[in-house]
Amino acid sequence: MKAQARVLGIDDAPFRFGDAETEVVGVLVRAPNYVEGVMTTRVAVDGRDATPRLAAMVRRSRFREAIVLLMIDGAALGGFNVVDIQALHEETRIPVVTVTRREPDQASIERALRARFEDGEERLAVLRRQGLTEVPTAHKPLWVSCAGIGVREASAAIRACTVRGALPEPVRIAHIVATAIKRGESRGRA
Amino acid sequence: MKAQARVLGIDDAPFRFGDAETEVVGVLVRAPNYVEGVMTTRVAVDGRDATPRLAAMVRRSRFREAIVLLMIDGAALGGFNVVDIQALHEETRIPVVTVTRREPDQASIERALRARFEDGEERLAVLRRQGLTEVPTAHKPLWVSCAGIGVREASAAIRACTVRGALPEPVRIAHIVATAIKRGESRGRA
Repeated sequence: MKAQARVLGIDDAPFRFGDAETEVVGVLVRAPNYVEGVMTTRVAVDGRDATPRLAAMVRRSRFREAIVLLMIDGAALGGFNVVDIQALHEETRIPVVTVTRREPDQASIERALRARFEDGEERLAVLRRQGLTEVPTAHKPLWVSCAGIGVREASAAIRACTVRGALPEPVRIAHIVATAIKRGESRGRA
Repeated sequence: MKAQARVLGIDDAPFRFGDAETEVVGVLVRAPNYVEGVMTTRVAVDGRDATPRLAAMVRRSRFREAIVLLMIDGAALGGFNVVDIQALHEETRIPVVTVTRREPDQASIERALRARFEDGEERLAVLRRQGLTEVPTAHKPLWVSCAGIGVREASAAIRACTVRGALPEPVRIAHIVATAIKRGESRGRA
């Protein structure tokens, strides 16, 4: 990744039981941590629209030509609204990486998807296809899935955007902004 | 200002004719530009509640003990909702500085306040009491008003939080976030 490349960090806002939709925030960061823009969209809680909503958010952004990487906090937004990162990459022609700090508990995710959704197997198939790789950082490890970019290059991009701790700035700041939009103040989680 | 001191940058969201209120965003930045938190409140468009609303936002923040300076984009939020920075400083016990990139047109502000508000003279009195000083930066100058802090120290704080251009990061990022909350994407103004 080139120095000062633009990375769009994406995270969703917390939601309450019964909410139909939740906010999603994209923060455009010039590596490592210069904020250049913020954009928002909404996704259905536990819905199926995360991939097209993210693609549309990127497409209508005036920054779309400058973004070299989409970096999403986790593999799903708004609960179990799974992001098909391969489809998102093909739609936007921008590489996509998901990052998460906790190793996902695959067994409990499978159980939840099968129990709660008629199309649980389809959602699982998307997650399985994307795989998950542990990536060491100067701090604790991250788990990443990649589309349109190799794990090695994704790790370098994560390093290039990390200032403190393990979480890269685009995702860390997107989390702070998304939480504040919903709650009035972010709680952070560094 | 100590290295890594926390500055809360404050800006309002754009509003439309007829809106009763508009969002106000506070971004807590560890100098020069590490985002630590985001908080929000609302103020009445052309109202009189900016000062107590800001004081309440700061008071309920978990960061309140860490903030060494409030840095507000301009002397009023939500149109002509003038911030009484001396009162805000006394209320929060935190120094306050307003910054603006364009030299305010005092004559047209006076005309507008007198023509549009029964209490226009009171609002003007607050603005006059606060004064306005031109401060050079590496880029273009800024105009600042200070409460609880001298112009020289305020200038140093602005320098300590400036990465590119003239606008310090706390205010620049608050502007980007506030705009995105309202419009779905910030336009920036660097």
